[in-house]
Amino acid sequence: MTTEAQAFVKEIPSKAESFADWYTAVCLKAELADYSPIRGCMVIRPYGYALWEGIQRWLDERFKATGHVTAYFPLFVPESLLQKEAEHVEGFAPQVAWVTHGGDEELSERLAVRPTSEAIIMPMYAKWIQSYRDLPVLLLQWNSVVRWEKSTRLFLRTAEFLWHEGHTAHVTSDEADQECRTILEIYRQLLEDVLAIPVLVGKKPPSERFAGADNTYTLEALMPDSQAIQAGTSHFLGQRFARAFNVKFLDRDNTEKYVWTTSWAVSSRLIGSLVMAHGDDRGLGLPPRIAPIQVVIVPILGRDGERVLGAARALAERLGKVAHVRLDDRDEYTPGWKFNDWEMRGVPIRLEIGPRDVAARQTVLVKRPDGSKATVSLDGIEQTVAAALEDVQRTYFTRAKAFLDAHMVEAKTMADLEAAIRDRRGFVKTGWCQEQACEDAIRERTGASPRVIPLDDEPEETCLVCGRPATATVYYARAY
Amino acid sequence: MTTEAQAFVKEIPSKAESFADWYTAVCLKAELADYSPIRGCMVIRPYGYALWEGIQRWLDERFKATGHVTAYFPLFVPESLLQKEAEHVEGFAPQVAWVTHGGDEELSERLAVRPTSEAIIMPMYAKWIQSYRDLPVLLLQWNSVVRWEKSTRLFLRTAEFLWHEGHTAHVTSDEADQECRTILEIYRQLLEDVLAIPVLVGKKPPSERFAGADNTYTLEALMPDSQAIQAGTSHFLGQRFARAFNVKFLDRDNTEKYVWTTSWAVSSRLIGSLVMAHGDDRGLGLPPRIAPIQVVIVPILGRDGERVLGAARALAERLGKVAHVRLDDRDEYTPGWKFNDWEMRGVPIRLEIGPRDVAARQTVLVKRPDGSKATVSLDGIEQTVAAALEDVQRTYFTRAKAFLDAHMVEAKTMADLEAAIRDRRGFVKTGWCQEQACEDAIRERTGASPRVIPLDDEPEETCLVCGRPATATVYYARAY
Repeated sequence: MTTEAQAFVKEIPSKAESFADWYTAVCLKAELADYSPIRGCMVIRPYGYALWEGIQRWLDERFKATGHVTAYFPLFVPESLLQKEAEHVEGFAPQVAWVTHGGDEELSERLAVRPTSEAIIMPMYAKWIQSYRDLPVLLLQWNSVVRWEKSTRLFLRTAEFLWHEGHTAHVTSDEADQECRTILEIYRQLLEDVLAIPVLVGKKPPSERFAGADNTYTLEALMPDSQAIQAGTSHFLGQRFARAFNVKFLDRDNTEKYVWTTSWAVSSRLIGSLVMAHGDDRGLGLPPRIAPIQVVIVPILGRDGERVLGAARALAERLGKVAHVRLDDRDEYTPGWKFNDWEMRGVPIRLEIGPRDVAARQTVLVKRPDGSKATVSLDGIEQTVAAALEDVQRTYFTRAKAFLDAHMVEAKTMADLEAAIRDRRGFVKTGWCQEQACEDAIRERTGASPRVIPLDDEPEETCLVCGRPATATVYYARAY
Repeated sequence: MTTEAQAFVKEIPSKAESFADWYTAVCLKAELADYSPIRGCMVIRPYGYALWEGIQRWLDERFKATGHVTAYFPLFVPESLLQKEAEHVEGFAPQVAWVTHGGDEELSERLAVRPTSEAIIMPMYAKWIQSYRDLPVLLLQWNSVVRWEKSTRLFLRTAEFLWHEGHTAHVTSDEADQECRTILEIYRQLLEDVLAIPVLVGKKPPSERFAGADNTYTLEALMPDSQAIQAGTSHFLGQRFARAFNVKFLDRDNTEKYVWTTSWAVSSRLIGSLVMAHGDDRGLGLPPRIAPIQVVIVPILGRDGERVLGAARALAERLGKVAHVRLDDRDEYTPGWKFNDWEMRGVPIRLEIGPRDVAARQTVLVKRPDGSKATVSLDGIEQTVAAALEDVQRTYFTRAKAFLDAHMVEAKTMADLEAAIRDRRGFVKTGWCQEQACEDAIRERTGASPRVIPLDDEPEETCLVCGRPATATVYYARAY
């Protein structure tokens, strides 16, 4: 490593030694986000927002392809509406930002800045839905929500965050459940195929469900510090909100019934997971399918600057047809500085081109995950780069999957479980009788929480706590 | 008109006789928007939101092509920051929704739900901008803002509305002014080329500037009731916000200078203008370039239903490659009902296809603006439909332009001006000496406000009020 590179990298703490500091430094230095003058609220900077736009674009296309349409509901929820579903208000009220004044006037009723929008959407459904012909309603919105958090971390926990929230209404329970699973599968593809983050897919135990849900499906990822992070949720709300808000329809059989509803979301928190999953001591690592810049071209001018620059421009133009390309022709920085800068920003592929490369019709291709270098011909460079991008995408997923696989352990006793959590061995598999007392005992002893009940697993034989027959398999972990 | 059609249309009041009621009925019936349980806040329904998505997509592409990047800044502005620029706070404070509590705790400082974001963005610029190399900063965000309005109308005036807000910082005054004009031209293209709404382009007089701006560029459209509507604004903020928030940079000449900033926006209010500009007594009228559904195919099944349906499906598939097409194969409605329904929703082109059409390899093409019908061959139908869409686009613009041209009048005396405003003759051109007293006199006498000072017009000879030499031409109108 050159002195320049050392100086550059020095500003980022070691990921292995101080994970939390490393994380914050990468978010700030790569200009993904910044702290704002408002406690708990962050600014998402253009490079971070481009990641969110990528997530939005990918998801929105799939939502539309599966029959969903987009709408926009108000930012505010009157207190009386928030209170209609008892568990819902209990879950959210402690975290609500309250608007009490409009201009100089005190409002007659406080307005919550939406922490989630069920309570404002359901009254509209009551108005819009009369007949089975009006169903299903498959809506979503892209917006921000506010939950008044005391301690915050960039992307991972902020008082305001960006998300979409889907809100659907159906004739039958089965159809609503199928909707939840359709969305869950879209989320899984986003996580694994785009963000290269492998996930465990399943249900939450009742204690971890969304406030007001009959069932919460979840995707759980494991971060390099062996803490789990909830990557997305899809809630089967049953008829609870329909009853609370009186959303009924006349069915084919001429009887009035309550609709079955769902809600689902992923948030800008995903960007935090992305940073943690793939970054290293040189900075950010971005899988090509989400990278705003997939290929950076750094010309090394030497004595024949104009010729090299011309070749670099021609290369950028060719590659622009197959990838998001940036030509870094800034003259105030050295090539070495640029290499470090773009590595820090996680650009998957770097192409270096100097006078000798131009003469030999070649370029040096460097892959971000391992820094591997290869001299490649400019003939067929489009195919070479496309293949290299696929390779980098695969590398990130394979690495993360290997880490996850190596951090799925099983515990047969409480002592096993305690040790596994303490030693950061990852997701710890346990049998559970589904009694709340047994879950509470584990939480208290380990500080871990039950993250996910896999959909297809055969249950373990016995409950780890009480020894009675197990009816479910649960993965425990400490969590973000 | 059939009885069915009469019954259908009857629900929409006459545009000529009761414009305001007509407007609201069209917004509600075409399912663009609905009232929400929160006073002053509306719900934008999927069909209305699709219009907003169209505006977003078109603008975002142009913003990116002109070097702008997207970010996200917090929803809240601490009161102390809002107060930093004196005119700014004076302009916005009366309309602010204040958050005073987070959960059960009273906040130490009130937070404004952003009415606009200068006061939260400038402190970040102070942090990010050090050198001329950091400039220009060309940022925007897509978000909602809140202005506590007492009396509201769907899209036109609501307590919360959707918009983007651009916020740029520059080395020189000229560069900032050029940025304002670049954006103004993008807005003009959106209005005229996409939404088919002709506009007057120019500057606001000082009384109508954005609170805190040195100059506000504006686009003004004229609605069919002869009221003007501000369609977009681009503000040259000079160094006022830079001074208030201490945003300085080290220039090439090694001296510290304040940056020059701009801000600019168009909002979901545009959808209201679109409804007013092109709708009629049958409902909404949408120019093809913004219509979410450009072509609807209505099969008329007759006795050979399957064959007609097959032909309609094949037609939809062919046209799907050149236009946004909807095949209306619902069996619970008659063709006549569907004709009225899609007309009410403003779909530019309807294709009817029945058994005889299938046999003759033809379809009946109906254009929404004038209801004109033509039997056209299925051979080359893609080209026929593409040309018809262009024709409908042109028709809407030509009509609106003819209306505007017919409603630009000149006044030489106060009596002229009063009569012109009273008789709803549109934009009334006047000479102005640029004294505030003269403007105030006109406002008081006519209830009209000065909408725009054209950029290129030769000034009139004398001020309409005081008779002194005029230094500017001003168009007056009553306004939304």
